[in-house]
Amino acid sequence: MLIIGERINSTRPRIQEAIKARNAPGILKEARSQLDAGAHYIDINCAVTSGDELQDMDWAISVVQSGIPDVNICIDSPNYLAIEKALKVYKAGGRVFINSITGEDQRIEKIVPLAVRGDTKLIALTMDETGMPNTAEERFRLAKRIVDKVERLGFNTENLYFDALIRPISTEPDQAREFLRSIPMIKALGRVKTICGLSNVSYGLPSRGTINAAFLAMAAQSGLDAAILDPTDRHMSSSIAASMALLGGDEYCAGYIRAFREAKLQ
Amino acid sequence: MLIIGERINSTRPRIQEAIKARNAPGILKEARSQLDAGAHYIDINCAVTSGDELQDMDWAISVVQSGIPDVNICIDSPNYLAIEKALKVYKAGGRVFINSITGEDQRIEKIVPLAVRGDTKLIALTMDETGMPNTAEERFRLAKRIVDKVERLGFNTENLYFDALIRPISTEPDQAREFLRSIPMIKALGRVKTICGLSNVSYGLPSRGTINAAFLAMAAQSGLDAAILDPTDRHMSSSIAASMALLGGDEYCAGYIRAFREAKLQ
Repeated sequence: MLIIGERINSTRPRIQEAIKARNAPGILKEARSQLDAGAHYIDINCAVTSGDELQDMDWAISVVQSGIPDVNICIDSPNYLAIEKALKVYKAGGRVFINSITGEDQRIEKIVPLAVRGDTKLIALTMDETGMPNTAEERFRLAKRIVDKVERLGFNTENLYFDALIRPISTEPDQAREFLRSIPMIKALGRVKTICGLSNVSYGLPSRGTINAAFLAMAAQSGLDAAILDPTDRHMSSSIAASMALLGGDEYCAGYIRAFREAKLQ
Repeated sequence: MLIIGERINSTRPRIQEAIKARNAPGILKEARSQLDAGAHYIDINCAVTSGDELQDMDWAISVVQSGIPDVNICIDSPNYLAIEKALKVYKAGGRVFINSITGEDQRIEKIVPLAVRGDTKLIALTMDETGMPNTAEERFRLAKRIVDKVERLGFNTENLYFDALIRPISTEPDQAREFLRSIPMIKALGRVKTICGLSNVSYGLPSRGTINAAFLAMAAQSGLDAAILDPTDRHMSSSIAASMALLGGDEYCAGYIRAFREAKLQ
Protein backbone atom coordinates (compact mmCIF):
# COMPACT_ATOMS: atom_id res chain seq x y z
CA MET A 1 0.00 0.00 0.00
CA LEU A 2 1.25 3.42 -0.99
CA ILE A 3 1.50 5.72 2.03
CA ILE A 4 1.27 9.52 1.81
CA GLY A 5 2.39 11.19 5.03
CA GLU A 6 -0.18 13.83 5.99
CA ARG A 7 1.63 15.75 8.72
CA ILE A 8 2.86 18.81 6.76
CA ASN A 9 -0.60 20.31 6.64
CA SER A 10 -1.30 23.94 7.39
CA THR A 11 -4.54 23.09 9.20
CA ARG A 12 -2.27 21.88 12.03
CA PRO A 13 -1.32 24.91 14.20
CA ARG A 14 2.28 23.75 14.63
CA ILE A 15 2.79 23.50 10.86
CA GLN A 16 1.03 26.81 10.26
CA GLU A 17 3.50 28.46 12.64
CA ALA A 18 6.49 26.74 11.07
CA ILE A 19 5.46 27.95 7.63
CA LYS A 20 4.84 31.51 8.85
CA ALA A 21 8.15 31.61 10.72
CA ARG A 22 10.02 29.99 7.80
CA ASN A 23 11.24 27.32 10.20
CA ALA A 24 13.00 25.08 7.68
CA PRO A 25 14.46 22.56 10.16
CA GLY A 26 10.98 22.05 11.65
CA ILE A 27 9.42 21.26 8.26
CA LEU A 28 12.31 19.05 7.21
CA LYS A 29 12.08 17.10 10.45
CA GLU A 30 8.39 16.43 9.80
CA ALA A 31 9.24 15.13 6.33
CA ARG A 32 12.11 12.93 7.54
CA SER A 33 10.20 11.40 10.45
CA GLN A 34 7.37 10.38 8.11
CA LEU A 35 9.77 8.84 5.58
CA ASP A 36 11.49 6.95 8.41
CA ALA A 37 8.08 5.70 9.52
CA GLY A 38 7.35 4.29 6.06
CA ALA A 39 5.77 7.11 4.02
CA HIS A 40 6.34 6.92 0.27
CA TYR A 41 5.14 10.47 -0.43
CA ILE A 42 5.08 13.64 1.68
CA ASP A 43 1.91 15.69 1.45
CA ILE A 44 2.49 19.45 1.49
CA ASN A 45 -0.45 21.71 2.25
CA CYS A 46 -0.04 25.47 2.75
CA ALA A 47 -3.63 26.50 2.12
CA VAL A 48 -4.45 28.01 5.51
CA THR A 49 -1.37 29.95 6.53
CA SER A 50 -3.10 33.33 6.05
CA GLY A 51 -0.04 34.27 4.04
CA ASP A 52 0.45 33.92 0.29
CA GLU A 53 -0.24 30.26 -0.49
CA LEU A 54 1.89 30.32 -3.66
CA GLN A 55 4.92 31.69 -1.85
CA ASP A 56 4.41 29.42 1.13
CA MET A 57 4.14 26.35 -1.13
CA ASP A 58 7.27 27.44 -3.03
CA TRP A 59 9.16 27.77 0.25
CA ALA A 60 7.93 24.49 1.79
CA ILE A 61 8.68 22.40 -1.29
CA SER A 62 12.11 24.01 -1.66
CA VAL A 63 12.90 23.17 1.94
CA VAL A 64 11.85 19.54 1.65
CA GLN A 65 13.59 18.84 -1.65
CA SER A 66 16.77 20.63 -0.65
CA GLY A 67 17.06 18.36 2.38
CA ILE A 68 15.85 15.14 0.71
CA PRO A 69 16.95 15.12 -2.95
CA ASP A 70 14.85 12.12 -4.04
CA VAL A 71 11.70 12.97 -2.08
CA ASN A 72 8.30 12.17 -3.57
CA ILE A 73 5.71 14.83 -2.80
CA CYS A 74 1.97 15.26 -2.83
CA ILE A 75 0.95 18.79 -3.74
CA ASP A 76 -2.17 19.47 -1.72
CA SER A 77 -4.12 22.59 -2.61
CA PRO A 78 -7.59 23.77 -3.55
CA ASN A 79 -5.93 26.41 -5.78
CA TYR A 80 -4.72 25.39 -9.24
CA LEU A 81 -2.33 28.33 -9.32
CA ALA A 82 -0.59 26.98 -6.20
CA ILE A 83 -0.40 23.56 -7.87
CA GLU A 84 1.05 25.08 -11.03
CA LYS A 85 3.63 26.98 -9.01
CA ALA A 86 4.51 23.90 -6.96
CA LEU A 87 5.12 21.83 -10.09
CA LYS A 88 7.56 24.48 -11.29
CA VAL A 89 9.39 24.61 -7.97
CA TYR A 90 9.68 20.85 -7.54
CA LYS A 91 12.97 19.66 -9.02
CA ALA A 92 13.74 16.66 -6.83
CA GLY A 93 14.23 13.26 -8.41
CA GLY A 94 11.02 11.76 -7.06
CA ARG A 95 7.42 11.34 -8.15
CA VAL A 96 4.50 13.70 -7.62
CA PHE A 97 0.85 13.36 -6.62
CA ILE A 98 -1.58 16.21 -7.17
CA ASN A 99 -4.22 16.40 -4.43
CA SER A 100 -6.91 16.87 -5.77
CA ILE A 101 -9.63 17.19 -8.38
CA THR A 102 -13.35 16.58 -7.88
CA GLY A 103 -16.10 16.04 -10.44
CA GLU A 104 -16.37 19.82 -10.94
CA ASP A 105 -15.60 20.73 -14.54
CA GLN A 106 -13.72 23.88 -13.68
CA ARG A 107 -11.27 22.07 -11.40
CA ILE A 108 -10.81 19.26 -13.89
CA GLU A 109 -10.13 21.63 -16.77
CA LYS A 110 -7.56 23.60 -14.79
CA ILE A 111 -5.75 20.80 -12.98
CA VAL A 112 -5.79 17.76 -15.28
CA PRO A 113 -3.66 19.48 -17.97
CA LEU A 114 -1.07 20.24 -15.25
CA ALA A 115 -1.07 16.56 -14.26
CA VAL A 116 -0.73 15.46 -17.88
CA ARG A 117 2.14 17.85 -18.53
CA GLY A 118 3.88 16.95 -15.26
CA ASP A 119 3.21 13.19 -15.66
CA THR A 120 1.97 13.11 -12.07
CA LYS A 121 -0.39 10.89 -10.19
CA LEU A 122 -3.72 12.51 -9.41
CA ILE A 123 -6.21 12.18 -6.55
CA ALA A 124 -9.88 12.57 -7.44
CA LEU A 125 -12.48 13.05 -4.73
CA THR A 126 -15.84 11.47 -5.49
CA MET A 127 -17.85 14.67 -5.06
CA ASP A 128 -19.02 17.46 -7.31
CA GLU A 129 -20.91 20.76 -7.21
CA THR A 130 -24.06 18.92 -6.10
CA GLY A 131 -22.36 17.66 -2.93
CA MET A 132 -21.07 14.49 -1.31
CA PRO A 133 -22.33 11.00 -2.17
CA ASN A 134 -24.07 8.81 0.39
CA THR A 135 -24.09 5.34 -1.12
CA ALA A 136 -21.44 3.19 -2.80
CA GLU A 137 -23.44 3.43 -6.01
CA GLU A 138 -23.37 7.24 -5.98
CA ARG A 139 -19.61 7.15 -5.40
CA PHE A 140 -19.23 4.76 -8.32
CA ARG A 141 -21.28 6.93 -10.67
CA LEU A 142 -19.26 10.01 -9.77
CA ALA A 143 -16.00 8.12 -10.32
CA LYS A 144 -17.19 6.93 -13.72
CA ARG A 145 -18.01 10.47 -14.80
CA ILE A 146 -14.59 11.68 -13.64
CA VAL A 147 -12.83 8.88 -15.55
CA ASP A 148 -14.63 9.90 -18.74
CA LYS A 149 -13.69 13.54 -18.27
CA VAL A 150 -9.99 13.04 -17.47
CA GLU A 151 -9.55 10.50 -20.28
CA ARG A 152 -10.84 13.07 -22.73
CA LEU A 153 -8.09 15.38 -21.47
CA GLY A 154 -5.44 12.74 -22.18
CA PHE A 155 -4.72 11.65 -18.61
CA ASN A 156 -3.47 8.09 -18.09
CA THR A 157 -6.04 6.64 -15.67
CA GLU A 158 -3.46 4.22 -14.30
CA ASN A 159 -2.31 7.24 -12.30
CA LEU A 160 -5.80 8.20 -11.12
CA TYR A 161 -6.49 7.53 -7.43
CA PHE A 162 -10.09 7.86 -6.24
CA ASP A 163 -10.77 9.01 -2.71
CA ALA A 164 -14.34 7.91 -2.03
CA LEU A 165 -14.56 10.31 0.95
CA ILE A 166 -15.19 8.58 4.22
CA ARG A 167 -17.36 10.50 6.68
CA PRO A 168 -17.57 10.16 10.49
CA ILE A 169 -19.39 7.05 11.70
CA SER A 170 -20.23 8.89 14.93
CA THR A 171 -22.94 10.81 13.09
CA GLU A 172 -23.46 8.65 9.97
CA PRO A 173 -23.26 5.01 11.06
CA ASP A 174 -23.55 3.49 7.58
CA GLN A 175 -20.81 5.51 5.91
CA ALA A 176 -17.95 3.10 6.63
CA ARG A 177 -19.86 0.24 5.00
CA GLU A 178 -20.79 2.37 1.99
CA PHE A 179 -17.20 3.53 1.59
CA LEU A 180 -15.81 -0.01 1.85
CA ARG A 181 -18.40 -1.33 -0.60
CA SER A 182 -17.43 1.36 -3.10
CA ILE A 183 -13.76 0.36 -3.33
CA PRO A 184 -14.14 -2.81 -5.46
CA MET A 185 -16.89 -1.09 -7.47
CA ILE A 186 -14.61 1.83 -8.37
CA LYS A 187 -11.68 -0.47 -9.10
CA ALA A 188 -13.86 -2.43 -11.50
CA LEU A 189 -13.75 0.69 -13.70
CA GLY A 190 -10.40 -0.56 -14.91
CA ARG A 191 -6.90 0.72 -14.36
CA VAL A 192 -7.85 3.31 -11.74
CA LYS A 193 -6.77 2.99 -8.11
CA THR A 194 -8.22 3.96 -4.74
CA ILE A 195 -6.90 6.08 -1.91
CA CYS A 196 -8.28 7.27 1.40
CA GLY A 197 -7.67 10.11 3.81
CA LEU A 198 -8.95 7.89 6.54
CA SER A 199 -8.85 9.73 9.83
CA ASN A 200 -12.21 11.41 9.15
CA VAL A 201 -13.91 8.10 9.90
CA SER A 202 -13.28 8.47 13.63
CA TYR A 203 -14.11 12.16 14.01
CA GLY A 204 -16.05 12.80 17.20
CA LEU A 205 -15.07 9.51 18.85
CA PRO A 206 -12.59 8.78 21.65
CA SER A 207 -9.49 6.65 21.00
CA ARG A 208 -9.59 7.56 17.32
CA GLY A 209 -6.51 5.51 16.45
CA THR A 210 -8.37 2.32 17.38
CA ILE A 211 -11.13 3.05 14.87
CA ASN A 212 -8.65 4.22 12.24
CA ALA A 213 -6.58 1.03 12.59
CA ALA A 214 -9.54 -1.32 12.20
CA PHE A 215 -10.87 0.74 9.30
CA LEU A 216 -7.51 0.63 7.53
CA ALA A 217 -7.41 -3.19 7.84
CA MET A 218 -10.91 -3.41 6.34
CA ALA A 219 -10.08 -0.97 3.55
CA ALA A 220 -6.90 -2.92 2.73
CA GLN A 221 -8.97 -6.07 2.51
CA SER A 222 -11.38 -4.29 0.17
CA GLY A 223 -8.48 -3.46 -2.14
CA LEU A 224 -7.45 0.07 -1.11
CA ASP A 225 -4.24 0.97 -2.97
CA ALA A 226 -3.05 4.00 -1.04
CA ALA A 227 -3.74 5.99 2.11
CA ILE A 228 -3.11 9.49 3.37
CA LEU A 229 -2.30 9.22 7.05
CA ASP A 230 0.18 9.90 9.81
CA PRO A 231 2.68 7.03 9.50
CA THR A 232 4.34 8.01 12.78
CA ASP A 233 1.13 7.07 14.63
CA ARG A 234 1.68 3.54 15.95
CA HIS A 235 -1.96 2.63 15.47
CA MET A 236 -1.41 3.27 11.79
CA SER A 237 2.02 1.67 11.37
CA SER A 238 0.77 -1.41 13.24
CA SER A 239 -2.32 -1.78 11.13
CA ILE A 240 -0.46 -1.26 7.85
CA ALA A 241 2.22 -3.82 8.75
CA ALA A 242 -0.33 -6.37 9.96
CA SER A 243 -2.62 -5.84 6.98
CA MET A 244 0.19 -6.35 4.49
CA ALA A 245 1.34 -9.51 6.30
CA LEU A 246 -2.21 -10.88 6.30
CA LEU A 247 -3.11 -10.00 2.73
CA GLY A 248 0.08 -11.18 1.06
CA GLY A 249 1.83 -7.88 0.40
CA ASP A 250 4.67 -8.92 2.71
CA GLU A 251 6.20 -12.28 1.89
CA TYR A 252 7.04 -14.35 4.96
CA CYS A 253 6.14 -11.33 7.09
CA ALA A 254 9.63 -9.85 6.64
CA GLY A 255 8.28 -6.28 6.71
CA TYR A 256 6.15 -7.03 9.75
CA ILE A 257 9.09 -8.49 11.67
CA ARG A 258 11.22 -5.47 10.69
CA ALA A 259 8.47 -3.13 11.93
CA PHE A 260 8.52 -5.04 15.23
CA ARG A 261 12.31 -4.68 15.53
CA GLU A 262 12.02 -0.96 14.79
CA ALA A 263 9.44 -0.69 17.60
CA LYS A 264 6.70 0.47 15.22
CA LEU A 265 4.08 -2.01 16.46
CA GLN A 266 1.68 -1.78 19.36
CA MET B 1 -20.41 -10.66 17.05
CA LEU B 2 -20.75 -13.52 19.49
CA ILE B 3 -17.67 -13.84 21.70
CA ILE B 4 -16.58 -17.10 23.34
CA GLY B 5 -13.94 -16.52 26.01
CA GLU B 6 -11.12 -19.02 25.49
CA ARG B 7 -9.15 -18.66 28.70
CA ILE B 8 -10.40 -21.71 30.66
CA ASN B 9 -8.38 -24.09 28.53
CA SER B 10 -6.30 -26.89 29.97
CA THR B 11 -3.54 -26.34 27.43
CA ARG B 12 -2.67 -23.26 29.52
CA PRO B 13 -0.39 -24.34 32.41
CA ARG B 14 -2.13 -22.06 34.92
CA ILE B 15 -5.55 -23.53 34.11
CA GLN B 16 -4.17 -27.07 34.13
CA GLU B 17 -2.90 -26.47 37.66
CA ALA B 18 -6.15 -24.88 38.81
CA ILE B 19 -8.11 -27.90 37.56
CA LYS B 20 -5.71 -30.38 39.16
CA ALA B 21 -5.71 -28.50 42.45
CA ARG B 22 -9.51 -28.04 42.36
CA ASN B 23 -8.94 -24.30 42.73
CA ALA B 24 -12.54 -23.16 42.34
CA PRO B 25 -11.96 -19.41 43.00
CA GLY B 26 -9.24 -19.39 40.34
CA ILE B 27 -11.53 -20.90 37.70
CA LEU B 28 -14.46 -18.70 38.66
CA LYS B 29 -12.29 -15.61 38.46
CA GLU B 30 -11.27 -16.54 34.91
CA ALA B 31 -14.92 -16.91 33.95
CA ARG B 32 -15.97 -13.62 35.56
CA SER B 33 -13.15 -11.57 34.07
CA GLN B 34 -14.05 -12.78 30.60
CA LEU B 35 -17.75 -12.01 31.06
CA ASP B 36 -16.83 -8.55 32.36
CA ALA B 37 -14.68 -8.07 29.25
CA GLY B 38 -17.61 -8.86 26.97
CA ALA B 39 -17.65 -12.64 26.48
CA HIS B 40 -21.09 -14.13 25.76
CA TYR B 41 -19.98 -17.74 26.33
CA ILE B 42 -17.24 -19.30 28.47
CA ASP B 43 -15.27 -22.09 26.80
CA ILE B 44 -14.36 -24.92 29.16
CA ASN B 45 -11.64 -27.33 28.07
CA CYS B 46 -10.26 -29.99 30.42
CA ALA B 47 -8.75 -32.29 27.80
CA VAL B 48 -5.10 -32.13 28.85
CA THR B 49 -5.14 -32.22 32.63
CA SER B 50 -3.65 -35.75 32.75
CA GLY B 51 -6.50 -36.49 35.15
CA ASP B 52 -9.92 -37.91 34.28
CA GLU B 53 -11.35 -35.53 31.67
CA LEU B 54 -14.95 -36.46 32.52
CA GLN B 55 -14.51 -35.73 36.22
CA ASP B 56 -12.49 -32.59 35.52
CA MET B 57 -15.18 -31.28 33.15
CA ASP B 58 -17.89 -32.12 35.71
CA TRP B 59 -15.99 -30.17 38.36
CA ALA B 60 -15.15 -27.14 36.18
CA ILE B 61 -18.69 -26.72 34.87
CA SER B 62 -20.13 -27.12 38.36
CA VAL B 63 -17.81 -24.42 39.65
CA VAL B 64 -18.65 -21.94 36.90
CA GLN B 65 -22.43 -22.45 37.02
CA SER B 66 -22.57 -22.40 40.80
CA GLY B 67 -20.90 -18.98 40.81
CA ILE B 68 -22.70 -17.57 37.75
CA PRO B 69 -26.25 -18.97 37.58
CA ASP B 70 -27.06 -17.74 34.05
CA VAL B 71 -23.69 -18.50 32.47
CA ASN B 72 -23.54 -19.64 28.85
CA ILE B 73 -20.86 -22.25 28.25
CA CYS B 74 -18.95 -23.80 25.39
CA ILE B 75 -18.14 -27.44 26.04
CA ASP B 76 -14.77 -27.99 24.40
CA SER B 77 -13.61 -31.58 24.11
CA PRO B 78 -12.36 -34.10 21.57
CA ASN B 79 -14.19 -36.80 23.57
CA TYR B 80 -17.92 -37.27 23.05
CA LEU B 81 -18.20 -38.95 26.45
CA ALA B 82 -16.90 -35.79 28.10
CA ILE B 83 -19.41 -33.75 26.09
CA GLU B 84 -22.23 -36.08 27.11
CA LYS B 85 -21.22 -35.82 30.76
CA ALA B 86 -20.89 -32.02 30.54
CA LEU B 87 -24.40 -31.68 29.11
CA LYS B 88 -25.74 -33.66 32.09
CA VAL B 89 -23.83 -31.56 34.61
CA TYR B 90 -24.78 -28.20 33.10
CA LYS B 91 -27.92 -26.90 34.79
CA ALA B 92 -27.43 -23.15 34.56
CA GLY B 93 -30.00 -21.03 32.82
CA GLY B 94 -27.85 -20.16 29.85
CA ARG B 95 -27.15 -21.50 26.36
CA VAL B 96 -24.59 -24.08 25.30
CA PHE B 97 -22.12 -24.46 22.45
CA ILE B 98 -20.54 -27.82 21.69
CA ASN B 99 -16.97 -27.48 20.41
CA SER B 100 -16.63 -29.37 18.05
CA ILE B 101 -17.40 -31.76 15.23
CA THR B 102 -15.40 -32.20 12.03
CA GLY B 103 -16.35 -33.87 8.77
CA GLU B 104 -15.47 -37.28 10.25
CA ASP B 105 -18.51 -39.53 10.30
CA GLN B 106 -17.72 -41.08 13.64
CA ARG B 107 -17.57 -37.70 15.42
CA ILE B 108 -20.71 -36.49 13.69
CA GLU B 109 -22.67 -39.63 14.58
CA LYS B 110 -21.66 -39.45 18.23
CA ILE B 111 -21.91 -35.71 18.86
CA VAL B 112 -24.72 -34.38 16.66
CA PRO B 113 -27.42 -36.40 18.47
CA LEU B 114 -26.18 -34.88 21.74
CA ALA B 115 -26.50 -31.40 20.21
CA VAL B 116 -30.00 -32.18 18.89
CA ARG B 117 -31.14 -33.54 22.24
CA GLY B 118 -29.58 -30.64 24.19
CA ASP B 119 -30.74 -28.01 21.65
CA THR B 120 -27.23 -26.58 21.63
CA LYS B 121 -25.24 -24.58 19.16
CA LEU B 122 -22.51 -26.60 17.45
CA ILE B 123 -19.06 -25.71 16.09
CA ALA B 124 -17.92 -27.63 13.00
CA LEU B 125 -14.29 -27.52 11.90
CA THR B 126 -13.80 -27.66 8.14
CA MET B 127 -11.49 -30.68 8.20
CA ASP B 128 -11.92 -34.43 7.98
CA GLU B 129 -9.93 -37.67 8.09
CA THR B 130 -8.07 -36.64 4.92
CA GLY B 131 -6.67 -33.52 6.61
CA MET B 132 -6.93 -29.74 6.55
CA PRO B 133 -8.12 -27.71 3.55
CA ASN B 134 -5.86 -25.20 1.78
CA THR B 135 -8.18 -23.15 -0.39
CA ALA B 136 -11.48 -21.39 0.24
CA GLU B 137 -13.10 -23.80 -2.22
CA GLU B 138 -11.93 -26.86 -0.26
CA ARG B 139 -13.27 -25.30 2.94
CA PHE B 140 -16.60 -24.66 1.24
CA ARG B 141 -16.87 -28.24 -0.07
CA LEU B 142 -16.15 -29.65 3.38
CA ALA B 143 -18.73 -27.35 4.95
CA LYS B 144 -21.33 -28.43 2.41
CA ARG B 145 -20.75 -32.11 3.18
CA ILE B 146 -21.04 -31.42 6.91
CA VAL B 147 -24.31 -29.52 6.41
CA ASP B 148 -25.77 -32.49 4.53
CA LYS B 149 -24.73 -34.92 7.24
CA VAL B 150 -25.98 -32.94 10.25
CA GLU B 151 -29.27 -32.11 8.53
CA ARG B 152 -29.91 -35.83 8.06
CA LEU B 153 -29.46 -36.21 11.80
CA GLY B 154 -32.11 -33.57 12.44
CA PHE B 155 -29.86 -30.72 13.54
CA ASN B 156 -31.14 -27.16 12.96
CA THR B 157 -28.37 -25.63 10.84
CA GLU B 158 -29.21 -22.17 12.15
CA ASN B 159 -27.19 -23.28 15.18
CA LEU B 160 -24.25 -24.59 13.13
CA TYR B 161 -21.07 -22.45 13.31
CA PHE B 162 -18.29 -23.29 10.86
CA ASP B 163 -14.70 -22.71 11.89
CA ALA B 164 -12.77 -22.61 8.62
CA LEU B 165 -9.49 -23.15 10.48
CA ILE B 166 -7.03 -20.35 10.06
CA ARG B 167 -3.35 -21.40 9.93
CA PRO B 168 -0.23 -19.30 10.70
CA ILE B 169 0.65 -16.76 8.02
CA SER B 170 4.29 -16.92 9.16
CA THR B 171 4.67 -20.24 7.35
CA GLU B 172 1.67 -20.18 4.97
CA PRO B 173 1.33 -16.63 3.64
CA ASP B 174 -1.86 -17.22 1.64
CA GLN B 175 -3.91 -18.80 4.42
CA ALA B 176 -5.43 -15.58 5.79
CA ARG B 177 -6.74 -14.66 2.35
CA GLU B 178 -8.11 -18.16 1.76
CA PHE B 179 -9.79 -18.18 5.15
CA LEU B 180 -11.35 -14.73 4.63
CA ARG B 181 -12.50 -15.68 1.15
CA SER B 182 -14.20 -18.79 2.54
CA ILE B 183 -16.46 -16.92 4.99
CA PRO B 184 -19.00 -15.52 2.50
CA MET B 185 -18.82 -18.76 0.50
CA ILE B 186 -19.74 -20.85 3.55
CA LYS B 187 -22.45 -18.41 4.62
CA ALA B 188 -23.99 -18.68 1.16
CA LEU B 189 -24.89 -22.26 2.15
CA GLY B 190 -27.86 -20.75 3.95
CA ARG B 191 -28.70 -20.46 7.60
CA VAL B 192 -25.27 -21.56 8.84
CA LYS B 193 -22.90 -19.21 10.63
CA THR B 194 -19.16 -18.80 10.90
CA ILE B 195 -16.79 -18.73 13.85
CA CYS B 196 -13.04 -18.49 14.25
CA GLY B 197 -10.48 -19.43 16.87
CA LEU B 198 -8.31 -16.69 15.51
CA SER B 199 -5.07 -16.54 17.46
CA ASN B 200 -3.52 -19.30 15.33
CA VAL B 201 -3.11 -16.78 12.51
CA SER B 202 -0.23 -15.04 14.29
CA TYR B 203 1.62 -18.12 15.54
CA GLY B 204 5.39 -17.69 15.17
CA LEU B 205 5.24 -13.88 14.84
CA PRO B 206 6.12 -11.12 17.31
CA SER B 207 3.45 -8.75 18.64
CA ARG B 208 0.76 -11.34 17.94
CA GLY B 209 -2.07 -9.13 19.20
CA THR B 210 -1.40 -6.66 16.38
CA ILE B 211 -1.92 -9.35 13.74
CA ASN B 212 -4.91 -10.81 15.59
CA ALA B 213 -6.60 -7.40 15.83
CA ALA B 214 -6.24 -6.62 12.11
CA PHE B 215 -7.35 -10.13 11.21
CA LEU B 216 -10.44 -9.85 13.40
CA ALA B 217 -11.41 -6.57 11.69
CA MET B 218 -11.05 -8.21 8.28
CA ALA B 219 -12.97 -11.32 9.35
CA ALA B 220 -15.76 -9.15 10.76
CA GLN B 221 -15.95 -7.33 7.44
CA SER B 222 -16.16 -10.70 5.66
CA GLY B 223 -19.18 -11.57 7.79
CA LEU B 224 -17.74 -13.61 10.67
CA ASP B 225 -20.52 -14.24 13.19
CA ALA B 226 -18.56 -15.37 16.25
CA ALA B 227 -15.02 -15.67 17.57
CA ILE B 228 -13.21 -17.70 20.18
CA LEU B 229 -10.65 -15.43 21.77
CA ASP B 230 -9.36 -13.83 24.95
CA PRO B 231 -11.69 -10.86 25.49
CA THR B 232 -9.49 -9.53 28.29
CA ASP B 233 -6.71 -8.87 25.73
CA ARG B 234 -6.99 -5.18 24.82
CA HIS B 235 -5.93 -5.83 21.25
CA MET B 236 -9.03 -7.99 20.94
CA SER B 237 -11.51 -5.82 22.85
CA SER B 238 -10.34 -2.79 20.85
CA SER B 239 -10.70 -4.51 17.52
CA ILE B 240 -14.13 -5.96 18.36
CA ALA B 241 -15.48 -2.59 19.55
CA ALA B 242 -14.05 -0.72 16.54
CA SER B 243 -15.25 -3.33 14.06
CA MET B 244 -18.79 -3.27 15.41
CA ALA B 245 -18.84 0.54 15.32
CA LEU B 246 -17.57 0.55 11.73
CA LEU B 247 -19.80 -2.22 10.40
CA GLY B 248 -23.04 -1.08 11.95
CA GLY B 249 -23.38 -3.53 14.83
CA ASP B 250 -23.18 -0.67 17.32
CA GLU B 251 -25.64 2.12 16.68
CA TYR B 252 -24.18 5.58 17.24
CA CYS B 253 -21.05 3.89 18.58
CA ALA B 254 -22.62 3.58 22.05
CA GLY B 255 -20.80 0.30 22.73
CA TYR B 256 -17.52 1.74 21.49
CA ILE B 257 -17.81 4.78 23.74
CA ARG B 258 -18.70 2.52 26.68
CA ALA B 259 -15.62 0.36 25.94
CA PHE B 260 -13.55 3.55 26.00
CA ARG B 261 -14.99 4.60 29.37
CA GLU B 262 -14.30 1.14 30.75
CA ALA B 263 -10.66 1.49 29.57
CA LYS B 264 -10.95 -1.49 27.22
CA LEU B 265 -9.47 0.33 24.21
CA GLN B 266 -5.87 0.78 23.19
